[in-house]
Amino acid sequence: MGQLINEQTRGVFVIAVTPFSSTGAIDYASVDRMLDFYRDQKVHGLTILGIMGEAQKLSSDESLELTRHVLRRVGDTLPTIVGISGASFQVMRGLAQTSMDAGAAGVMVAPPMGLRTDDQIFNYYGSVCKAIGSDIPLVYQDYPQSTDVYLSPNLFLRLVQAYPQLVMLKHEESPGLGKISTIRSESEQKGVRRVSILVGNGALYYPLELQRGADGAMTGFAYPEMLVEVFERFFAGDPEGAEDLFDLYLPLVRYEQQPNVGLAIRKEILHRRGAIASPALRPPGYALTRADTEELDRLMARLARQLGGENAERQRVAEATMSTRK
Amino acid sequence: MGQLINEQTRGVFVIAVTPFSSTGAIDYASVDRMLDFYRDQKVHGLTILGIMGEAQKLSSDESLELTRHVLRRVGDTLPTIVGISGASFQVMRGLAQTSMDAGAAGVMVAPPMGLRTDDQIFNYYGSVCKAIGSDIPLVYQDYPQSTDVYLSPNLFLRLVQAYPQLVMLKHEESPGLGKISTIRSESEQKGVRRVSILVGNGALYYPLELQRGADGAMTGFAYPEMLVEVFERFFAGDPEGAEDLFDLYLPLVRYEQQPNVGLAIRKEILHRRGAIASPALRPPGYALTRADTEELDRLMARLARQLGGENAERQRVAEATMSTRK
Amino acid sequence: MGQLINEQTRGVFVIAVTPFSSTGAIDYASVDRMLDFYRDQKVHGLTILGIMGEAQKLSSDESLELTRHVLRRVGDTLPTIVGISGASFQVMRGLAQTSMDAGAAGVMVAPPMGLRTDDQIFNYYGSVCKAIGSDIPLVYQDYPQSTDVYLSPNLFLRLVQAYPQLVMLKHEESPGLGKISTIRSESEQKGVRRVSILVGNGALYYPLELQRGADGAMTGFAYPEMLVEVFERFFAGDPEGAEDLFDLYLPLVRYEQQPNVGLAIRKEILHRRGAIASPALRPPGYALTRADTEELDRLMARLARQLGGENAERQRVAEATMSTRK
Amino acid sequence: MGQLINEQTRGVFVIAVTPFSSTGAIDYASVDRMLDFYRDQKVHGLTILGIMGEAQKLSSDESLELTRHVLRRVGDTLPTIVGISGASFQVMRGLAQTSMDAGAAGVMVAPPMGLRTDDQIFNYYGSVCKAIGSDIPLVYQDYPQSTDVYLSPNLFLRLVQAYPQLVMLKHEESPGLGKISTIRSESEQKGVRRVSILVGNGALYYPLELQRGADGAMTGFAYPEMLVEVFERFFAGDPEGAEDLFDLYLPLVRYEQQPNVGLAIRKEILHRRGAIASPALRPPGYALTRADTEELDRLMARLARQLGGENAERQRVAEATMSTRK
Repeated sequence: MGQLINEQTRGVFVIAVTPFSSTGAIDYASVDRMLDFYRDQKVHGLTILGIMGEAQKLSSDESLELTRHVLRRVGDTLPTIVGISGASFQVMRGLAQTSMDAGAAGVMVAPPMGLRTDDQIFNYYGSVCKAIGSDIPLVYQDYPQSTDVYLSPNLFLRLVQAYPQLVMLKHEESPGLGKISTIRSESEQKGVRRVSILVGNGALYYPLELQRGADGAMTGFAYPEMLVEVFERFFAGDPEGAEDLFDLYLPLVRYEQQPNVGLAIRKEILHRRGAIASPALRPPGYALTRADTEELDRLMARLARQLGGENAERQRVAEATMSTRK
Repeated sequence: MGQLINEQTRGVFVIAVTPFSSTGAIDYASVDRMLDFYRDQKVHGLTILGIMGEAQKLSSDESLELTRHVLRRVGDTLPTIVGISGASFQVMRGLAQTSMDAGAAGVMVAPPMGLRTDDQIFNYYGSVCKAIGSDIPLVYQDYPQSTDVYLSPNLFLRLVQAYPQLVMLKHEESPGLGKISTIRSESEQKGVRRVSILVGNGALYYPLELQRGADGAMTGFAYPEMLVEVFERFFAGDPEGAEDLFDLYLPLVRYEQQPNVGLAIRKEILHRRGAIASPALRPPGYALTRADTEELDRLMARLARQLGGENAERQRVAEATMSTRK
Repeated sequence: MGQLINEQTRGVFVIAVTPFSSTGAIDYASVDRMLDFYRDQKVHGLTILGIMGEAQKLSSDESLELTRHVLRRVGDTLPTIVGISGASFQVMRGLAQTSMDAGAAGVMVAPPMGLRTDDQIFNYYGSVCKAIGSDIPLVYQDYPQSTDVYLSPNLFLRLVQAYPQLVMLKHEESPGLGKISTIRSESEQKGVRRVSILVGNGALYYPLELQRGADGAMTGFAYPEMLVEVFERFFAGDPEGAEDLFDLYLPLVRYEQQPNVGLAIRKEILHRRGAIASPALRPPGYALTRADTEELDRLMARLARQLGGENAERQRVAEATMSTRK
Repeated sequence: MGQLINEQTRGVFVIAVTPFSSTGAIDYASVDRMLDFYRDQKVHGLTILGIMGEAQKLSSDESLELTRHVLRRVGDTLPTIVGISGASFQVMRGLAQTSMDAGAAGVMVAPPMGLRTDDQIFNYYGSVCKAIGSDIPLVYQDYPQSTDVYLSPNLFLRLVQAYPQLVMLKHEESPGLGKISTIRSESEQKGVRRVSILVGNGALYYPLELQRGADGAMTGFAYPEMLVEVFERFFAGDPEGAEDLFDLYLPLVRYEQQPNVGLAIRKEILHRRGAIASPALRPPGYALTRADTEELDRLMARLARQLGGENAERQRVAEATMSTRK
């Protein structure tokens, strides 16, 4: 078994896309290339079979096969979380066990639509824990914009107290800044176990979220190196530098964060960057228009200019520093 | 001040429609006629400015005027609850005070859309209580099909414990049978104050709900005499007789319970029964088609036949009883 | 290949439940028993893998296996429609082809959540038709209470004109009486192909819907013999007799129509009637409480009394008729 | 009567907040100060009683009074659009007439929740036009994130063709870039009247939307001078310069665009900038926490630094230009 996630897990867990060929089949050669790409960008971990991985469009067999393939490929190099959300505990248990047997670091479950009260959510996760067994580390995926299930800070702490295997919150309520602050302060006040919080939402509020107490990001932004570098700068004690870098990418972060359209943009960028062979989504899915791709051309060019400027500026600062040192 | 509702309040509180003239103005002559009609049917109380009273289509002035008019007219004869739900505590407070000053028995508040967690709901009602003052009896209108706000039994009991002025639940979650049972049993087990529960949902599950622990109905079914008679039979120890009567009306209960369409049907029946001059809804609102009115003709005729049969049967039983007594 | 559904298809297509054993596996012995039960009740057809068949809780493999098993078992005796709704056209196509190869009469597709405009719905079904191929008869499952996708009469006729393989509407918008009337009248006025309409919604408005132009029912009420007999009486020219019979069952129709809870009730009744070995839903799912089962005892006993009465009444009429014939 | 909006209307129509005193009353002194502030920032127009103006929390009387006050105060200096959305055509008509009599430039109507099909939306706006009369310029507020009503490009063009008084789309679907492109291209292809499109959504995609064919913005970002300057640069033929300026503000645009929280931030900034006396929302509403205000301190300081940098850069360019001219 590989390394497991736990309460201290930090860093950038990139949400992997699922590359498809033009016939709609999973393109395993691109899966491998993409994994290399993510590794080259120095991400700290990986999440597969998330919503942005088009998990819901895979057959049960494909999910199992993709999971085994990815885990075999990354081996011990990257802790990998597998999304197992679904309508049935029976199916969920199968996917959880296969994943852990193949070396996953933990599993992630989003609540199903229709849970509406605190008690319903609490009991649901109780059943999930019972179904998958108590030794599998569990991530709560809190994405109410998609699930329509809302988790209050108090309820989350109740879950943390009740289920020791719950070690991480994937936080992507929006707006959600206050939620991170409240969870952190209430957890301290009440003496509740501090768990890992990685943020999603395409990283739109990432530097603010780090300031509020997040431990990193779990999202699939097509420039994961930014996510990693912001993380490094922030935890090296340079929050302003982290935010400076982030702001350069913010136009694209915002652009990629458009519901539905965003995944097509993300895959297109990954394709342009050589990470996957085809940007196609498995149908049904959004297909970029000419206006979209021209817009993306322009935004990517603007980013390149900005980054050029930043590098020039850094160079200048570095040289100035060196010259004063002389 | 008139009589106030409290935890022991029982019976049938009919949700009054708001009659409009053909120009869309409130038809106060029909308001009076309708109040007489309800009184003749021996209802135990009245609720005005509910969703089925088209409250949201009235201007603030009209709401205040209608409230004052109705309360002046019914005087002490019928305890009257006034719906004060709205987007602003400022406006809510004004309507609550006007209502109580004019002799209302209590006020009813539905949660606004957008409340999603237990804590959000709990805090909202705390603010409501603070806004209207602690001496006004309060009804929680629990109608998630319309508000999209879900109230768990546990949360309701938490509210009951925290806010003494909360004396009644208008229950219309659907399905909601289990909720009544749970509130009653949990309340007893935990020693939480028992409050009044009146059921809505057009009375579709009325006899079952009485069996589960409800204290009556708060709904606007156009034959309120059935609601009253079922209540009387049930609490006189004849649940089967209550359900027998209810089942005769069930085809129409079900018919009137259609979302949107139902209110137009209700007003049409009240119009046919002479309670209001015009069946019109204030626009925008559903207008019955010819197919609807013919269907209603047929369903009302079927009901008349059934009731004829029941009366004949009762007569027979009564005569048989008398003859054996001779 | 077996018989295919088409625009003239009429009758009662019962939505089959999926029986599970206590371990959560599909109980194939009960599947067979249930199929016999439905056949004994003289239903005209069958629908499997619907929402009420817990299709979403099956793995892809289980869906395929169950489909093949049922189709092999019923052979040519009952036309069988297979629900193939899902997030991916790829997976949908596979299930459609397997089903038709195994002898299905057609496939049924509900729109996925998130379709909001007429054009989005129109284009989605265009893609479905293209994905499954033009020779497979298609049913539009119109169940907005669950899918949150609303289909206007005009849009439906636009779909009927554009896609010849669309031969049936499973109608379960609520309220939906006006929709049937409008589709029928607009279709005639505009000369649009008349397709089959079978109604769902647990049959709550069944006799009214037949009057409005429906061709039968597609629902899983646990007393399918009522659905069949109402259909027979209605089309034999006895609408009042049809409605009389229906009204006897209405208390249970209403009872079984409770969202979430209803399926547990339906399975419990089927279990009590000997059609399936265990009433269990695959988790997560509602489990009946003691209050529920006692309520059901009472409602079933009331139905038995009513049916006894009806039979006695029929007997009386029959004897009277015979005696006058003497 | 003042100037009316029409199909050619362009520019920045700022959504005015409604300032409240600490007691919750409308603070008319701040209303005046705010109007001066907006005028000083050179906005091209004004919109009052929008969702971000807390219109739904005002009583009918307050809405009328505020409308009259604002229109008297701005006189002919700023075309003003009044939001009149509501549940009743009766109330809507009154507010529309009062507004136009007092000098409004037009009225804006968002569709009510519950409209789901193209035909329902089409018919609703037909009724609105009939209710308010055909000579009042109308804006369609397309904000599905709040109304849950979705407008397709085709349907919008159908509305434009049917109702000549519909002269503007307030566009704030998200994502909505493709929608602008489609409306513009379809309108041209089909020869449908070209109407004004002003964009909302807190301007998150503003420069991209201008590129797609928008005519300006209608949103309440607390730095309206940016909205104006981006508009000026863009239509002066400098889209890159427009986007450069926009990107400097993007961190705050994004920050203010948080649902619920955003309005409190906007009012706080307006308060800090001296435009209104109190940042308070009328209860219920979000109250900023200490973490929020410290975050805002930081973000505002970062903006000031960036703007300082831009000004320095511009100064440098300007000086360089001048020196070469010498």
